[in-house]
Amino acid sequence: MTDFSLNEIAAALGAQVQGDAELRVRGASEPAAADASQLALAMDPKYSDGLAKGHAKAAILWDGADWKSLGLEAAIFVPRPRYAMSGLTSLMDPGPEIVPGVHAMAVVHESARIGEGAAIAPFVTIGRDVVIGPGARIASHVSIAEGAQIGAQALILQGARIGARVRIGDRFIAQPGCVVGSDGFSFVTPEKSGVENVRKSLGDQGDAAQQSWTRIHSLGAVTIGNDVEIGANSCIDRGTIRDTSIGNGTKLDNLVHIGHNVQVGEDCLLCGQVGIAGSSRIGNRVVMAGQCGVNDNIFVGDDVIAGGASKIFTNAPAGRVLLGYPAVKMESHIEMQKALRRLPRFMAAAKGDK
Amino acid sequence: MTDFSLNEIAAALGAQVQGDAELRVRGASEPAAADASQLALAMDPKYSDGLAKGHAKAAILWDGADWKSLGLEAAIFVPRPRYAMSGLTSLMDPGPEIVPGVHAMAVVHESARIGEGAAIAPFVTIGRDVVIGPGARIASHVSIAEGAQIGAQALILQGARIGARVRIGDRFIAQPGCVVGSDGFSFVTPEKSGVENVRKSLGDQGDAAQQSWTRIHSLGAVTIGNDVEIGANSCIDRGTIRDTSIGNGTKLDNLVHIGHNVQVGEDCLLCGQVGIAGSSRIGNRVVMAGQCGVNDNIFVGDDVIAGGASKIFTNAPAGRVLLGYPAVKMESHIEMQKALRRLPRFMAAAKGDK
Amino acid sequence: MTDFSLNEIAAALGAQVQGDAELRVRGASEPAAADASQLALAMDPKYSDGLAKGHAKAAILWDGADWKSLGLEAAIFVPRPRYAMSGLTSLMDPGPEIVPGVHAMAVVHESARIGEGAAIAPFVTIGRDVVIGPGARIASHVSIAEGAQIGAQALILQGARIGARVRIGDRFIAQPGCVVGSDGFSFVTPEKSGVENVRKSLGDQGDAAQQSWTRIHSLGAVTIGNDVEIGANSCIDRGTIRDTSIGNGTKLDNLVHIGHNVQVGEDCLLCGQVGIAGSSRIGNRVVMAGQCGVNDNIFVGDDVIAGGASKIFTNAPAGRVLLGYPAVKMESHIEMQKALRRLPRFMAAAKGDK
Repeated sequence: MTDFSLNEIAAALGAQVQGDAELRVRGASEPAAADASQLALAMDPKYSDGLAKGHAKAAILWDGADWKSLGLEAAIFVPRPRYAMSGLTSLMDPGPEIVPGVHAMAVVHESARIGEGAAIAPFVTIGRDVVIGPGARIASHVSIAEGAQIGAQALILQGARIGARVRIGDRFIAQPGCVVGSDGFSFVTPEKSGVENVRKSLGDQGDAAQQSWTRIHSLGAVTIGNDVEIGANSCIDRGTIRDTSIGNGTKLDNLVHIGHNVQVGEDCLLCGQVGIAGSSRIGNRVVMAGQCGVNDNIFVGDDVIAGGASKIFTNAPAGRVLLGYPAVKMESHIEMQKALRRLPRFMAAAKGDK
Repeated sequence: MTDFSLNEIAAALGAQVQGDAELRVRGASEPAAADASQLALAMDPKYSDGLAKGHAKAAILWDGADWKSLGLEAAIFVPRPRYAMSGLTSLMDPGPEIVPGVHAMAVVHESARIGEGAAIAPFVTIGRDVVIGPGARIASHVSIAEGAQIGAQALILQGARIGARVRIGDRFIAQPGCVVGSDGFSFVTPEKSGVENVRKSLGDQGDAAQQSWTRIHSLGAVTIGNDVEIGANSCIDRGTIRDTSIGNGTKLDNLVHIGHNVQVGEDCLLCGQVGIAGSSRIGNRVVMAGQCGVNDNIFVGDDVIAGGASKIFTNAPAGRVLLGYPAVKMESHIEMQKALRRLPRFMAAAKGDK
Repeated sequence: MTDFSLNEIAAALGAQVQGDAELRVRGASEPAAADASQLALAMDPKYSDGLAKGHAKAAILWDGADWKSLGLEAAIFVPRPRYAMSGLTSLMDPGPEIVPGVHAMAVVHESARIGEGAAIAPFVTIGRDVVIGPGARIASHVSIAEGAQIGAQALILQGARIGARVRIGDRFIAQPGCVVGSDGFSFVTPEKSGVENVRKSLGDQGDAAQQSWTRIHSLGAVTIGNDVEIGANSCIDRGTIRDTSIGNGTKLDNLVHIGHNVQVGEDCLLCGQVGIAGSSRIGNRVVMAGQCGVNDNIFVGDDVIAGGASKIFTNAPAGRVLLGYPAVKMESHIEMQKALRRLPRFMAAAKGDK
């Protein structure tokens, strides 16, 4: 395991060291669990007891902490601890081990163009006319189908699936098992279906005939910007005619479903198990907590924040903070739930009044 | 990329061409984005501006459109535009590229019988006594375990998993990463558990002992009819004694979960992230929007339609349109939500009355 | 297919045979579907008609059943039928066919230590310094990354992904496609984000700047106890500093999401599509029905039982039985829903009063 001097770490964080800046550490730890070779992460005064229990000689400390009286030999001070975690973990992450070059048990089409410095693991398939930028690290069991294009510095982890003609920007990260470019879920009946009637009438199936479903194939692909990460076993469907798209800087957590034709903007966070139904548009900097759902063919504006498991059925204006099923303004949801909790007693009392 | 004459396209759609029927197009496009080689899809008058912006020479148009004044050289008219999309996209979909024959890096058991015309990609495993019908296209990294039987014209995409003894009809489509035949989630404690007590009492755990779970293995498999499609990373569990079953013509979207012993009828649509708990029965032509959930051991009747994220806890009669958590008639849900929105003010006013 | 004498079966169940204990059966069946070679499972009097329809010569019967008059040649009686299913199915499950030894098309790092009696299928990758206990059965397409340690008698099914430095106990079962050790979903902005403001204010974004997300890498791994099973396509994220952990005897169903730093206790059942957000702690013997969600950074106490799709936003005390969105005591939820159903008429009547 690599070790780092406190000086190197402080430089990576844009921070200052106090004490022995040449001290070397082999990793980071919660204060109470730290051994003598580890850097304790104690950015809050609540960790002072933990520091006493653990054996760290060095720590990242909260502002104003007295590192000497905490028994440390050195300390780093950072202005925004959560942000410092980013620099620290990026420095210390060893990353996946993939041997440079193309493994003998990978199947790479002769027409594929792989950029310099690639590391391609066993059991990878790369199809006709695929283009992959420099510095790609492609773990085992990945498939990249014909005509796909991926930018520089991609990290594509075990068993990820990149479909035909998908286009992806730089610094792409694909967690294991994610699927980019599955076919859209789009079916139609020869005559009007009960679902079409229900949508118009809000509840009446009408006299729809009994029919089977015919498939609408997906001629579009998926377009993904720069600095996008897709979580484990998440799925992004192809578009029907135009591409499904994910903007620059957007991150998807695990088991997220993105339907066909969906457009997700830039710098969004879609947490675990979020689902976006077909043809909806999500603005920029939208954050959805886990298990949120978005109806098909609607629009969610810029900077919307949706709390856990919110189900968004209708267009949401920019900046709205949402919660609930159906999703409403968070403060309305809280009021409604308070009222609902009181409702059984309220009704009983009202009955007593009469 | 293949090109098509307007005549060929019209024939596939059962439609008529007006203008230059020999004109050839290389793909389809939204009207505003179309280049001169593409067929514009403009089945609604709202697209007339788009046609002016784009460069298409040919389009599929809405009934009564004046193709000449729209600057086109040819046009196709269709009676039901959404249905026409099915024929058009089926014609133009190039499908996945899988080299005919069995790839040298596939591992196919000597006892397996693969039908004529199969294309089997690298890193596929096919187990003992597997039977696959003619015309199969099996993409990379697929596994088909011992004793599985799959009908004609199967399309099984990257990394799909077909379990032992699973039986599947004709024209099966498996999107990447789906799992057909994982073990059921079925555990039991030596003595009665808290869960068993809660189910009986609707809320009281009783005095259940602290116990560990013992596994009930799945001796059943999965039986799937004809014309079934399973979405990316969806999972269908084996049955405990009899098979879990999916009827003819039923389509599952991505990340759908089908528990052990579940029986899904014919021509159903189960959208993204739907979950059906163990031993429930779903009728024919049932449509569930994204993130719906169905309790275990219940029955959902024919032609039920459930709106987004409906959670169905009790039997649902045929033809019912459902919404909500817990799912109720869609119109009841809408009424209840309207009332709930007014409730905080209603309660405040009632307090003022006294 | 193996066959079993009734004596062998009774011994496995700790039960007694009446009648011909040497009779042999080849499998189990529901009573009405049983052929003459199968053991009928008829642990409830409601199955007596089924027995008459089917052709079984032997059955597991309900207490007090008269096996002779039911036309059987032998019967087994068990005290707790559901528990007997465990012993019976364990006995009869043939398990997956994986040829003993290491397949020529597996890529196993020379430093890896694989215990005695292992069966490793084609297209498996095993990384540097991996340690796997005796009796491992590893199906095709599995990847086990550098430094992972897995105990005795592991069954790791097709395409499962075990990440670097993950530590797993004995008798581990991984269903196809599950991912243990994906990176945590943890991002931070240089300055305070709207999400941080909303969390503090319960709804107000404040004046957060427009910013992009910076990644916090996951330096931790995942620690899993003994007797744990992970369902198909489920995902467990690595911890940021310490490991994400799953206790002894805990079982996860399909498509479950476990966020970074989460600690799940012992003997829990997390059903299909459950999601646990980052840094939450789940006690022992907790049971969550399908599609439950748990907020980040909260605590769910021992023996909590949560009904289908409960969304748990706040700490839950030990022993609580929960239901709803937001999750409340099951009995409160039922009362609130009853009141809500009456609310539209109640409001209309109140209006009439004035």
